[in-house]
Amino acid sequence: MKSIIHSHKSVRQYSVRTVDEATIVKIVNAAVRGSNTGNMQLYSIVLTTQPKIKQQLMPLHFNQPMVEHAPLVMTFCADINRFSHWCKLRGTEPCYDNFLWFSTALTDTVIAAENAAVEAEFAGLGICFLGTTMYNAEEIANVLNLPKGVVPVITMTAGYPEDPELPLTERLPYQAVLHFETYKDYTDSDINKYYNEFENLDKIKDIVKQNKLNNLAEVFTQKRYTKTDGDLFSKKYLDYVKKSFTMD
Amino acid sequence: MKSIIHSHKSVRQYSVRTVDEATIVKIVNAAVRGSNTGNMQLYSIVLTTQPKIKQQLMPLHFNQPMVEHAPLVMTFCADINRFSHWCKLRGTEPCYDNFLWFSTALTDTVIAAENAAVEAEFAGLGICFLGTTMYNAEEIANVLNLPKGVVPVITMTAGYPEDPELPLTERLPYQAVLHFETYKDYTDSDINKYYNEFENLDKIKDIVKQNKLNNLAEVFTQKRYTKTDGDLFSKKYLDYVKKSFTMD
Repeated sequence: MKSIIHSHKSVRQYSVRTVDEATIVKIVNAAVRGSNTGNMQLYSIVLTTQPKIKQQLMPLHFNQPMVEHAPLVMTFCADINRFSHWCKLRGTEPCYDNFLWFSTALTDTVIAAENAAVEAEFAGLGICFLGTTMYNAEEIANVLNLPKGVVPVITMTAGYPEDPELPLTERLPYQAVLHFETYKDYTDSDINKYYNEFENLDKIKDIVKQNKLNNLAEVFTQKRYTKTDGDLFSKKYLDYVKKSFTMD
Repeated sequence: MKSIIHSHKSVRQYSVRTVDEATIVKIVNAAVRGSNTGNMQLYSIVLTTQPKIKQQLMPLHFNQPMVEHAPLVMTFCADINRFSHWCKLRGTEPCYDNFLWFSTALTDTVIAAENAAVEAEFAGLGICFLGTTMYNAEEIANVLNLPKGVVPVITMTAGYPEDPELPLTERLPYQAVLHFETYKDYTDSDINKYYNEFENLDKIKDIVKQNKLNNLAEVFTQKRYTKTDGDLFSKKYLDYVKKSFTMD
């Protein structure tokens, strides 16, 4: 028997069917059940359903239409605000605003988010994760009224799929990411073996042709995720994170 | 019907039953199926089963016994090495070594890890995540021969549970982490409402008493996760991450 995970695909178009409250509670409870460091639960989830707020979020996610059309938009945030508030209220000084705790809170937040995704799919919904959350984190934080200590990490849109028969996206064979006992660094021949099948798909060749480039790697470095954009958004995200974490 | 996620508990003691190869492949394929940025799959998984290597890892995880006794020890690593190698081999310069891509790779790595955890539990195994991976990342990287561009993030031990009837760990009620439309910052009264039930559990009161402290928050700040330890390990992790990522 296969678990639901093996049929995951990102769903970007949703039917008009709404998601009932019991399903939402199940999804959030799945997030809450996730493993987390010391049971500190250093995350919060902002669930946006109102068109007015979704329309404010949409340009910050580079106008990806599912932000407006998905019944549920869930922004998962690393959150040391709630735990720190609790510490202070109990008369002790919290100390969770450094780089280690940023990385830890981010980890716990993503575990919660993936649990929510799997649970949503188990309930028949389709989901899509938006990495753009990090690109415009401060602007998203402003829309969602996030206080200091709460950093948006990833957004999940969810709803019932318009087309339940979407194909799976190709991935590298598992052997490409799995190392036995210790890491065996890749030879050129390993890289060719693992990437060639993917590169030779007709749809990938079409993308390369449309972009008038020589290969898929160039599509990544020269079109999709360029150094100029990456460095710009990296600085933006770090500057914003530094308002909540010392990062040292 | 409930998904497997709702019965998750961390399992630290395993039976002698081994995990067969088909199950391992299912777990790794679940990780690979996870959402990830641009289908770049910026992670690697090192699966350690040999006693000799587990014994080297064990002190780096502060001698948590499951590192030695678990049939499977899986170290999930953020990995820009493989993708960058591919870019170079295709004649283009990779540009994924900044703070944004560290955060992105970490996110994708944790999605893969949580998928592996859910899949393992679906197969009847028990798992435990070790956050200590970040505390001694460089030493762990040395044991596992990780090259530049590969940063250990989180470790999962897995095996068949010695005691399949472990109780669930208490969590905050979901209302404590869920915000509707925008973030509503917590009042003192909110904090009391959400944390009081947890603080009043007999087992929590016992922990406070054993530590001769006044409350659970003090157990966190003065015993479990102190500022001195946190700042030390934070600097260590950041120094190590900076060997692979510019962090600006």
